[in-house]
Amino acid sequence: MKITLLTVGRSTNSHVARLVDHFALRVGRYIDYAVEAVPDVKTTRTTTEEKQREMEGRNILSALRPGDFLWLLDEHGTEYTSREFAREIQRRMAAGVTKRIVFVVGGPYGFSPDVKERSDALISLSRMTFPHEMVPLLFTEQVYRAMTILRGEPYHHD
Amino acid sequence: MKITLLTVGRSTNSHVARLVDHFALRVGRYIDYAVEAVPDVKTTRTTTEEKQREMEGRNILSALRPGDFLWLLDEHGTEYTSREFAREIQRRMAAGVTKRIVFVVGGPYGFSPDVKERSDALISLSRMTFPHEMVPLLFTEQVYRAMTILRGEPYHHD
Repeated sequence: MKITLLTVGRSTNSHVARLVDHFALRVGRYIDYAVEAVPDVKTTRTTTEEKQREMEGRNILSALRPGDFLWLLDEHGTEYTSREFAREIQRRMAAGVTKRIVFVVGGPYGFSPDVKERSDALISLSRMTFPHEMVPLLFTEQVYRAMTILRGEPYHHD
Repeated sequence: MKITLLTVGRSTNSHVARLVDHFALRVGRYIDYAVEAVPDVKTTRTTTEEKQREMEGRNILSALRPGDFLWLLDEHGTEYTSREFAREIQRRMAAGVTKRIVFVVGGPYGFSPDVKERSDALISLSRMTFPHEMVPLLFTEQVYRAMTILRGEPYHHD
């Protein structure tokens, strides 16, 4: 099984990018993990939030393959503890039908109805709103943490 | 009113430290904000988790002044949305008796009973466990976000 994190646009902050790389490399020891960006959409002053969501949505959907398990990072998603999140990933691995889980960090205004309809699950990292570009960092570390939890390795303290 | 974030030991990751500085500078436009570290305690192979908490606790308590409102970042704390957190800070500002709010990020094993007893409130950033050294970054950004929310500035999207 593979795990892909899909983001809308790339982080422009080099410090964040380096930290994401740091954890992505570690995750790679356990599972095939990729952080991929769909292109930023071109907006003008007259582009509505709805229109932007729709354009971003088209890019997200075209990056998917049939059978991908689509898991959106969404403020209305389920909040898990790190252990619960590890168990959820394990459950999908055990089910055996999923070849790839694709987690998606949406654009600034969230997801289009089309993306929501295609999604299989929603997850929320926190009730708080974190900066958009920091989410891939938090998420990638959380996948690393999950892998160490599943292997019984001493990275995670309860 | 001042806000101080107290951490046990300093971050050794220069990327994280630069990002904390980035947001701390921004918070400084709105309120007197400081990130301070109490010294790391010296541990040996035989130091128990309880003993470490106790030593860290003494350092934390000796960094406090009478009247400080002590707010611990603790996994058992209250989870707020960013708007709720802004409102909680505003409430303390409005009360007028608090000269300084001190938020504390504890050591790897949490807080000693003495620190818990001295504390006025507990806050949790997420149900998930984030890396200890990333917490000052998330927290400082959240204080910045709170300030922009209270001023009605367009940084935060709901």
